[in-house]
Amino acid sequence: MSIVPDAGAARTALRALVGEGLSDDEARAAYATAIWSTLVEPGDGAAGALIGHYGAVEALERVLAESTSGLAEAVGLADEDVRAARARWLPRRGDVDRVLVAARRAGVRLLLPGEEIWPCALDDLGVHAPICLWARGDLRALSGAAALALVGARAATAYGTHVVTELAAESAAAGIVVVSGAAYGIDGAAHRAALRADGQTIAVLAGGVDRPYPAGHDELISAIARAGLVLAEVPCGTAPTKWRFLARNRVIAALAGATVVVEAAHRSGALNTAHHAAALGRALGAVPGPVTSAASAGCHRLLREADAVCVTSAADAWELLGLSPNTDGEANPAGGGRTDEHTRVLDALSGRRARATAEVARLCGLSLAEASGILGLLELDGRVERTDDGWRRRSGPRPARLW
Amino acid sequence: MSIVPDAGAARTALRALVGEGLSDDEARAAYATAIWSTLVEPGDGAAGALIGHYGAVEALERVLAESTSGLAEAVGLADEDVRAARARWLPRRGDVDRVLVAARRAGVRLLLPGEEIWPCALDDLGVHAPICLWARGDLRALSGAAALALVGARAATAYGTHVVTELAAESAAAGIVVVSGAAYGIDGAAHRAALRADGQTIAVLAGGVDRPYPAGHDELISAIARAGLVLAEVPCGTAPTKWRFLARNRVIAALAGATVVVEAAHRSGALNTAHHAAALGRALGAVPGPVTSAASAGCHRLLREADAVCVTSAADAWELLGLSPNTDGEANPAGGGRTDEHTRVLDALSGRRARATAEVARLCGLSLAEASGILGLLELDGRVERTDDGWRRRSGPRPARLW
Repeated sequence: MSIVPDAGAARTALRALVGEGLSDDEARAAYATAIWSTLVEPGDGAAGALIGHYGAVEALERVLAESTSGLAEAVGLADEDVRAARARWLPRRGDVDRVLVAARRAGVRLLLPGEEIWPCALDDLGVHAPICLWARGDLRALSGAAALALVGARAATAYGTHVVTELAAESAAAGIVVVSGAAYGIDGAAHRAALRADGQTIAVLAGGVDRPYPAGHDELISAIARAGLVLAEVPCGTAPTKWRFLARNRVIAALAGATVVVEAAHRSGALNTAHHAAALGRALGAVPGPVTSAASAGCHRLLREADAVCVTSAADAWELLGLSPNTDGEANPAGGGRTDEHTRVLDALSGRRARATAEVARLCGLSLAEASGILGLLELDGRVERTDDGWRRRSGPRPARLW
Repeated sequence: MSIVPDAGAARTALRALVGEGLSDDEARAAYATAIWSTLVEPGDGAAGALIGHYGAVEALERVLAESTSGLAEAVGLADEDVRAARARWLPRRGDVDRVLVAARRAGVRLLLPGEEIWPCALDDLGVHAPICLWARGDLRALSGAAALALVGARAATAYGTHVVTELAAESAAAGIVVVSGAAYGIDGAAHRAALRADGQTIAVLAGGVDRPYPAGHDELISAIARAGLVLAEVPCGTAPTKWRFLARNRVIAALAGATVVVEAAHRSGALNTAHHAAALGRALGAVPGPVTSAASAGCHRLLREADAVCVTSAADAWELLGLSPNTDGEANPAGGGRTDEHTRVLDALSGRRARATAEVARLCGLSLAEASGILGLLELDGRVERTDDGWRRRSGPRPARLW
């Protein structure tokens, strides 16, 4: 007899947890996926490979069968990999229905790959993609709007908190989904600002979505679940661990089109998220800060060592998402619009005493013809005026100061 | 009769201004160069091309001759370029001997290309290189030590002043020549810190070296002339103009192996120096600051738009000079030395209650064999200890916090 019940029993066990109208196969696959979710740690590549090849039901049956011969070869793994994988999965077999009851109580939805609402961006993680997602909140946050990950230090400074609040508020108000990890500091400020702006925000947790962590963010995470979305790849009841935090970071990086690290110490976990974003080919940004601030040291490392883009404003962050290209049009930051000769002629003029063209030419080291041509152009621009005694600089809006 | 006097008269006119033991030709060339210096604005490419082709004496004679036919062609210029050049040079003919007297009074040395002390780095400017340098101070600053340009906003903040003071003091103490422009703000702080560290510093002025500018830096510039070196390509008595500031910036960028912009507003003149450094293929760095500080906006532009390297310390700046390569050896900023599995095993251990290997394996989702292998390694590292009841995490130095 299969470990996975028939479709009717699977549907009953999964009622209210999955979408409507599942076929019999889909219902059994959903149930098997829920079991898988209790057996593996996040990002288990052997599980990803087996499920990808056989589907959740058959993969589970084959792994639990007495003989697994041929299993490894079929998915391109070594026999010892599958042996090791079974050795870590089998001791975890437990009562999946208890997990499903806990999920139902917490108002959780089980999201499955292949569902229309499933965030395809996660597929970029390959065999390490989450095998499912447990979700609390408004699934519309996954409806395809651009998503920006704003992450950073728990020990944020007032500066970092200020900057992430601006970035998140402006982004959320512009319809961008703000993704973060619900941690203290930068993460929490990002979610809060997005909520205040009536925008969409997604918190990806390292433990179960029914176990808000950190405890001090219990209320914040509940607020995110009401107005936005709380996601986890581990089932309800699972405790967060360091490993799960690291694995969670890859989900944040994959969900978002770009990741911006707002503040991070030299070895902050936010650098791990940044690393995932870069490895996934996602755009990576870092907010600079004072070099005297330890809380910005990690951001500066990203700028120096990881080719992160320097992000100073929401517009900069959106550019990483390809949303609002910089239309400033100035490739050369030293450019000031005026040509060198114009500068030299203006240098040679006084605002008080008028000077003859020949005198202007001599003072600025240009020929008479060059100087009078430029004086004519400057006159058209309203920068100089012609008097009976020669040329005078006009007062008016000063040019951008060059030194 | 030549406009350039014979060697004896030239030597007399140049006494105390040039090096000893000039040949007759060199003495006349030096005199002609001094004349050229009074005729042209900095960076005049036509003058550079003619002097490069004919030498200073013949170039001068040919330019001043009634017929200049063939002159343009010989140096690859258009006839009208030479006509325009003559039209801007000839009206400036004046009394070079008065300039030489003023230089002698100010204790100035006239440096000529080809002299051993001439900074060859300037040759990278091609026909736009200075045709000579007027120098006040200790020529040993040009003796070949690595040179770092530290430039930035006049309107420096306390933050920028603090950072440039550290960078300049540490660099000067390490034997690096600190090059800057003697302006208020960042420039002045760089020179001051180098002087206080008993190091070498070079100020490149936009006007004559006998006309300290800004006036408020009269004393600072005199101090630099005593302990370091003050340079200008324009002769004594020349006023600084905006054009000359811009042209001066290329000399700062060319003299130094790397340029670091410490603070700069969005359109600061320091960006012009940065542009020259990049155009010359010199290393370019920028010090980040708070994104809320307008005084750092130009630095952030350089990081975003000009591929400047993020400089947070003197060591970072020295790396730009190729002096102190980063031996940190960590390419992946997320790396923490421990492998993922080690993290998972440590997660599964308690510091108080001992756990059996099987329990540890189940908790962290590894096989028994994997878990016990890793526990052995962690024991060797002193991270865990074996007790009668199983494994316990050892207290001791905590690992670098990952989140």
